[in-house]
Amino acid sequence: MITTDTSAPRRANSPLKLGELLALNRESADALLHASSGPRDDSRELIASFRNTRTFSNRLCEPLEVEDYVIQSMPEASPMKWHLAHTSWFFETFILKPHFKGYASSHPEYNFLFNSYYNAVGPFHARPQRGLLSRPTVKNALEYRTEVDALVTELLENADEEKLLELKPLIILGVNHEQQHQELMLTDLKHMFAQNPLHPVYCPNALTASGDVQSMAWIPFDGGLHRIGHDGEAFAYDNEGPSHQVVIGSFAMASRLVTNQEYEAFIEDGGYERPDLWLSLGWNAVNEKNWKAPLYWEKCDGKWRQFTLHGVENLSPDEPVGHISYFEADAFARWAGARLATEAEWELASEGVPIAGHFVDDELFKPIAAKLGDGIYAPTQMFGDLWEWTRSSYSPYPGYKTTDGALGEYNGKFMCNQYVLRGGSCATSQSHIRRTYRNFFPPDARWQFSGIRLTRDTQ
Amino acid sequence: MITTDTSAPRRANSPLKLGELLALNRESADALLHASSGPRDDSRELIASFRNTRTFSNRLCEPLEVEDYVIQSMPEASPMKWHLAHTSWFFETFILKPHFKGYASSHPEYNFLFNSYYNAVGPFHARPQRGLLSRPTVKNALEYRTEVDALVTELLENADEEKLLELKPLIILGVNHEQQHQELMLTDLKHMFAQNPLHPVYCPNALTASGDVQSMAWIPFDGGLHRIGHDGEAFAYDNEGPSHQVVIGSFAMASRLVTNQEYEAFIEDGGYERPDLWLSLGWNAVNEKNWKAPLYWEKCDGKWRQFTLHGVENLSPDEPVGHISYFEADAFARWAGARLATEAEWELASEGVPIAGHFVDDELFKPIAAKLGDGIYAPTQMFGDLWEWTRSSYSPYPGYKTTDGALGEYNGKFMCNQYVLRGGSCATSQSHIRRTYRNFFPPDARWQFSGIRLTRDTQ
Amino acid sequence: MITTDTSAPRRANSPLKLGELLALNRESADALLHASSGPRDDSRELIASFRNTRTFSNRLCEPLEVEDYVIQSMPEASPMKWHLAHTSWFFETFILKPHFKGYASSHPEYNFLFNSYYNAVGPFHARPQRGLLSRPTVKNALEYRTEVDALVTELLENADEEKLLELKPLIILGVNHEQQHQELMLTDLKHMFAQNPLHPVYCPNALTASGDVQSMAWIPFDGGLHRIGHDGEAFAYDNEGPSHQVVIGSFAMASRLVTNQEYEAFIEDGGYERPDLWLSLGWNAVNEKNWKAPLYWEKCDGKWRQFTLHGVENLSPDEPVGHISYFEADAFARWAGARLATEAEWELASEGVPIAGHFVDDELFKPIAAKLGDGIYAPTQMFGDLWEWTRSSYSPYPGYKTTDGALGEYNGKFMCNQYVLRGGSCATSQSHIRRTYRNFFPPDARWQFSGIRLTRDTQ
Amino acid sequence: MITTDTSAPRRANSPLKLGELLALNRESADALLHASSGPRDDSRELIASFRNTRTFSNRLCEPLEVEDYVIQSMPEASPMKWHLAHTSWFFETFILKPHFKGYASSHPEYNFLFNSYYNAVGPFHARPQRGLLSRPTVKNALEYRTEVDALVTELLENADEEKLLELKPLIILGVNHEQQHQELMLTDLKHMFAQNPLHPVYCPNALTASGDVQSMAWIPFDGGLHRIGHDGEAFAYDNEGPSHQVVIGSFAMASRLVTNQEYEAFIEDGGYERPDLWLSLGWNAVNEKNWKAPLYWEKCDGKWRQFTLHGVENLSPDEPVGHISYFEADAFARWAGARLATEAEWELASEGVPIAGHFVDDELFKPIAAKLGDGIYAPTQMFGDLWEWTRSSYSPYPGYKTTDGALGEYNGKFMCNQYVLRGGSCATSQSHIRRTYRNFFPPDARWQFSGIRLTRDTQ
Repeated sequence: MITTDTSAPRRANSPLKLGELLALNRESADALLHASSGPRDDSRELIASFRNTRTFSNRLCEPLEVEDYVIQSMPEASPMKWHLAHTSWFFETFILKPHFKGYASSHPEYNFLFNSYYNAVGPFHARPQRGLLSRPTVKNALEYRTEVDALVTELLENADEEKLLELKPLIILGVNHEQQHQELMLTDLKHMFAQNPLHPVYCPNALTASGDVQSMAWIPFDGGLHRIGHDGEAFAYDNEGPSHQVVIGSFAMASRLVTNQEYEAFIEDGGYERPDLWLSLGWNAVNEKNWKAPLYWEKCDGKWRQFTLHGVENLSPDEPVGHISYFEADAFARWAGARLATEAEWELASEGVPIAGHFVDDELFKPIAAKLGDGIYAPTQMFGDLWEWTRSSYSPYPGYKTTDGALGEYNGKFMCNQYVLRGGSCATSQSHIRRTYRNFFPPDARWQFSGIRLTRDTQ
Repeated sequence: MITTDTSAPRRANSPLKLGELLALNRESADALLHASSGPRDDSRELIASFRNTRTFSNRLCEPLEVEDYVIQSMPEASPMKWHLAHTSWFFETFILKPHFKGYASSHPEYNFLFNSYYNAVGPFHARPQRGLLSRPTVKNALEYRTEVDALVTELLENADEEKLLELKPLIILGVNHEQQHQELMLTDLKHMFAQNPLHPVYCPNALTASGDVQSMAWIPFDGGLHRIGHDGEAFAYDNEGPSHQVVIGSFAMASRLVTNQEYEAFIEDGGYERPDLWLSLGWNAVNEKNWKAPLYWEKCDGKWRQFTLHGVENLSPDEPVGHISYFEADAFARWAGARLATEAEWELASEGVPIAGHFVDDELFKPIAAKLGDGIYAPTQMFGDLWEWTRSSYSPYPGYKTTDGALGEYNGKFMCNQYVLRGGSCATSQSHIRRTYRNFFPPDARWQFSGIRLTRDTQ
Repeated sequence: MITTDTSAPRRANSPLKLGELLALNRESADALLHASSGPRDDSRELIASFRNTRTFSNRLCEPLEVEDYVIQSMPEASPMKWHLAHTSWFFETFILKPHFKGYASSHPEYNFLFNSYYNAVGPFHARPQRGLLSRPTVKNALEYRTEVDALVTELLENADEEKLLELKPLIILGVNHEQQHQELMLTDLKHMFAQNPLHPVYCPNALTASGDVQSMAWIPFDGGLHRIGHDGEAFAYDNEGPSHQVVIGSFAMASRLVTNQEYEAFIEDGGYERPDLWLSLGWNAVNEKNWKAPLYWEKCDGKWRQFTLHGVENLSPDEPVGHISYFEADAFARWAGARLATEAEWELASEGVPIAGHFVDDELFKPIAAKLGDGIYAPTQMFGDLWEWTRSSYSPYPGYKTTDGALGEYNGKFMCNQYVLRGGSCATSQSHIRRTYRNFFPPDARWQFSGIRLTRDTQ
Repeated sequence: MITTDTSAPRRANSPLKLGELLALNRESADALLHASSGPRDDSRELIASFRNTRTFSNRLCEPLEVEDYVIQSMPEASPMKWHLAHTSWFFETFILKPHFKGYASSHPEYNFLFNSYYNAVGPFHARPQRGLLSRPTVKNALEYRTEVDALVTELLENADEEKLLELKPLIILGVNHEQQHQELMLTDLKHMFAQNPLHPVYCPNALTASGDVQSMAWIPFDGGLHRIGHDGEAFAYDNEGPSHQVVIGSFAMASRLVTNQEYEAFIEDGGYERPDLWLSLGWNAVNEKNWKAPLYWEKCDGKWRQFTLHGVENLSPDEPVGHISYFEADAFARWAGARLATEAEWELASEGVPIAGHFVDDELFKPIAAKLGDGIYAPTQMFGDLWEWTRSSYSPYPGYKTTDGALGEYNGKFMCNQYVLRGGSCATSQSHIRRTYRNFFPPDARWQFSGIRLTRDTQ
């Protein structure tokens, strides 16, 4: 049984904290909501979606001190402050500048600082140097958010039907973009806190799980000609389409994610010392980076403990093992006499599985053990908890075309030397994920909430 | 019209050269041939194949000075001496040790020095340090070859039918393995000579091409369900199978490779300065490595020249552009409004195309311009000349299983962050290549004889 | 004539700033002063010195935002927060722990985080990772200061004469140590702000200089047997002694520091392009680091401008050139047909020169042009303005012995591959500097307020 | 008692070796000698000195295989082939080109390849890339030597008295320069062989020492005003002058070098694990480079062995410990309650000590234990055996001026971040060394034949 004391408040802000500003921001968002009770449902819904997403970014910052917003603990991560400003820059650049009549940026220098990688928008501040900026301050970044929020709302409220049609896909893209950054805020913050010998706690109230975990079963799937990829009118990223047919062989997929206990058995069996289990580049990584366990595990007095957003905890044997690289997932699967799924297999297996599970909406900030009784007829933990590495290299679907202009840089140019992950994690928004959703990271990345699901051929 | 003075002898050996040893080696191989006129054709054929391949490695060394055998000009390359010894070690390890009764290695230390990467065989000398060994000498390496040649021949001659059946696949693997190293010997030597401001010449007699090159046409192919991958009893590497069905869309493939002239147009159009043309990692590579043209091109007095195994030459506009990374091939294709083929498309397009072209057997050591009149009904230059980058990440085919034991390390463990190339090059043996053959290199590798063939969707 | 509007207040703190805490801290220091009006003058003086120094660290932070305290912009620099805490740790470790009866640290973890490099005190957090810590917060660091201040004051107030005799050298050392860190706070902050494309301003009111600078004259000094090094009872670092005799040849020393204008002439004469002017390691540095001018100079529309703590300014031709490495100082001197002084020559030349000039006490935060009329009979700008590189490698004086225990690590272990600088800078406290004072930095360091004074042999 | 079988021949050349060419070269040198029996003794002596030095370089190569000439095992080292060609280039550049009438280089490209670092002579091939050149071949390099030898001899033979006066200092410089490279040939070769798991043997006949080593005694020296540095007409490098007075305190110097046994005691006492014994940069080096013992020591079955030019040997307890960095010498001295000498102290202590000991002339290629009975009234092992680290940073003497032109780059530009070593080693020519001779290496260099002599203050 899983319990959590949800009545306990999130950590109170110290007097020095940005609490009031964050609240102010939320209030202004609330104000937006009421202000937007216009005649057109579409506009109202769009504004609500925009408002909720923007507010949730602020909510994730509530436990933070000003100092926590500034640091970049590795080149792949960004400071919290940057995430808050960049997501605002995205709305400013792709919505306010082209669509808000007479718009003049009050911070033209932000276009250089908070452009992530859109060459078509102009030159940008180098990624590994994001942690060198003490200014603009956190307060400035929050004010920037407030400004952008107000103007986007004004734009939406005053838009006629035609304009709204034009704006809608951009707002939805911006919302999805911000949801992605919310996930990164949590993973970047976790990485930064993990470097601190004091091990700061993001959220003091951790969920505790008790009782039995389901044993892993194999769910069989028939091969054949199947259609994968996104189709239809609902929002999806361009990399999810075009929908197309693929040939899939018969296979069986594990009923749940691999657990900490199962991964410990791999370690104890010399998993990190046997080159035969690893891809050649994986074996290099093990040796160069001196990997002996998943990221955030550390051995104290002969027992593994792990750093989480709730602090350092004893390893819970039944929880899914996370912060795993593709190399480790692949090696574990080989050790277990199985393999990782292709993304097509995963998509087939997820057919009919409801988009339910543990998402960031629950504010648990960690994956949860699979419940006994689930995973008998269909795989469980497919959505939420942990992203699942597939063995599919991230590459364009047949007929894939990038969008024209800057937004064409969103996905296509990253299709090289990365591997596809599916299903979302405990840091993903429920409304963000889909069966066809393709996340992607380099094979040595371990700072995501990423885990392992086994697959095997059947005949 | 293409002409070459084939009567001109290859460069004479200086008194200091290993000429006599190389010749001796070839003589002993000739002796083998006559000695092997036994009753069984299979044995004779196998011995001949073994002999020819081993002799050809020596032949490739004829223009070399002793000093040329020693140097490793980058971590990815190996000294000539190492190639000669490692290919012998391969036969010793996988044939002599397990199959030659009472075999005792006269150089047990070679097992450490000349094992490339087979963890299952034991610890090995680190690859980037291969250039630190002045001993064993070249002479030692050639003596090692002679010893191994004699014993393998003896083994084959005395093998009964059953034994022969057991040995045959290993000999064929060893022969193919050595052919791969022959190709590497040429590419590694080229790289090493290119670092030398004196630009040493490997082969002084270069082919000169005159007349018109064919203009590039598009050959259409119908989509549908197709079977790719190796099937049947002939030799193929494990990574070429299992044969399986794939869905392929309709496409058109360029009738020939992209030429130097076409690539120059890309450069002149700012190809190396426009981030929109590049994959993100590719754009990083362009900037970090300061790429401005293909490897081995250099600008003298406003004109591009290129270093070849025949010395530094004026760029021939009609010859295929080579020493191109995947990143450059991809960027060129985007610039040209096309794309690279998938490996499945390439394999489909090669159906019925004869395995003919310019191979290392011709000893031209460079790609040749496509002939006028070819490439009308079927793509030309599909085999030989230059390896063709595909957009397919190197990954296991459905149902792929690695062999047990050390030979299982041959292919599978490299299936990560590499891209498939097809068709062979002017440095490949004709008998080595197949339609299903999958070569692979990291996307930033430029030291191979690698080029570009365009593809595009049709509907 | 030099003018500055000293009536203008330093930049006001934003509501988010730590102003109140800083003020609180200052008040508590004031309280200390009054509280300390005990019977013994010595104690009162010691407390005042302690109080003033501690308060001045806080004063230097007044223009800062919280975010400014956190960032480490290069491995050699430290975050402001770290400086504030480390100087407190120094008092805690060397005074409170051994001398305050019953003292128990309320933050034992600070001993790991804020030990800089004293192996004898225990393991410490790696220097290049100081910028990864968002916690303890700035507020925590300031509270730590307040705690330490209160207890040190209490200790001093209650100390009997014997105890006071024991504590006095430690307090004086701690005060001097903190003064060193005050200088580093300014240089580290300057470096960090310089990385920011927004070029934040530390202090908006810059001094403007007008009128003529003195022309450089040569002040002659007679050679012979001279005594250098610290002697007597006043405080000095151990590296300044023992006092000893040295043989010095006759020489002449420049009457003032080299100016920006003079340095520009060096650049325009190809100073950074002529290997004959440079030490071999210096020439490597020029090429590897792509040096073309002093640190913080940048060319805009053909004119040099420089980043200062007052923002980006036009280059003032008469001000001394600063942020110069030893390599640049040495190359400039060679170009000018002169050389750098030895530290013995410098010390001899400073005999009788009053410890006067532009120090951090003036809060100018930049060097000032030499006044017309000065530097005729004695060199001017010897103290303050800019540290002056000598050609003397930092090495122990004859008979030098390090102190026992942790404090023995203060100086001696750094006597390798560093060069001595003399005279202090505009970031040095006037009470901190002496004729015998030996500062030291590696020859490629440019982030200090370091400049050039020429010397030449005479006969 | 020390014995060596000097009748045993050096290792015979294999048929592939350059024996005949080396011999031919020596013969031509012999021919030179006889041809030079002209009227002027000075010319004859000069030619003999030139001949002997040039011949000795070839003699050092006799045990080598062609492959041994090519490899550069670290950026600081050079291939043997390069040393042979560079020393010839030195004579060609500074003697033949300016002084041989009508001289035209037959290999103008060598000026780029074999210039070491003389910017004034023109651009040069980057040092770390010397190992990438298989051509020119070893044979080419030896032919170059023969050509240069013949022309220099011709020039000297035909020079009139005035010309001879002009040439003499250049020839002497060239001879001394080549002697320095002979030493580097041995240290570079030793480093290269040490990288080879086969541990090739340069010289199979090692000296064996038996009997008692002297116990270490302290030889006292009175302080006062002393003169150091080179004076007079005999050849010396510019860095040895001008002669000048220095103040030296009273000190005592160890009667002999520190032995392997004494150094083992340091290791066993945790010498490499105690930061208090090390300079800060030294402690960094210990940790970054994972030093646990001198270079070339390796532990086998609990006992230290060392790689030498005679192969891997058991550690001889009484032999001086060699291949020691400045950092290790300094740490050992601190551990032993002593210190290293300054170079002035060393020079004073060497007064009256004959230039005798174990030099490369003896072809022992290793240091030898100090003899019982020596070192009572004067320090022994001062010359030869091992270079002795001093605590003096390599810096210009007062009044030091570099020569004009390219030869001014010989010494002065290296006076930064290096430490002075004195006395020569078993790889130094006896005729090369002097009391005033200043060798210099960076403090982390361990590949020289460098050892430790202790010093301490007396009063």
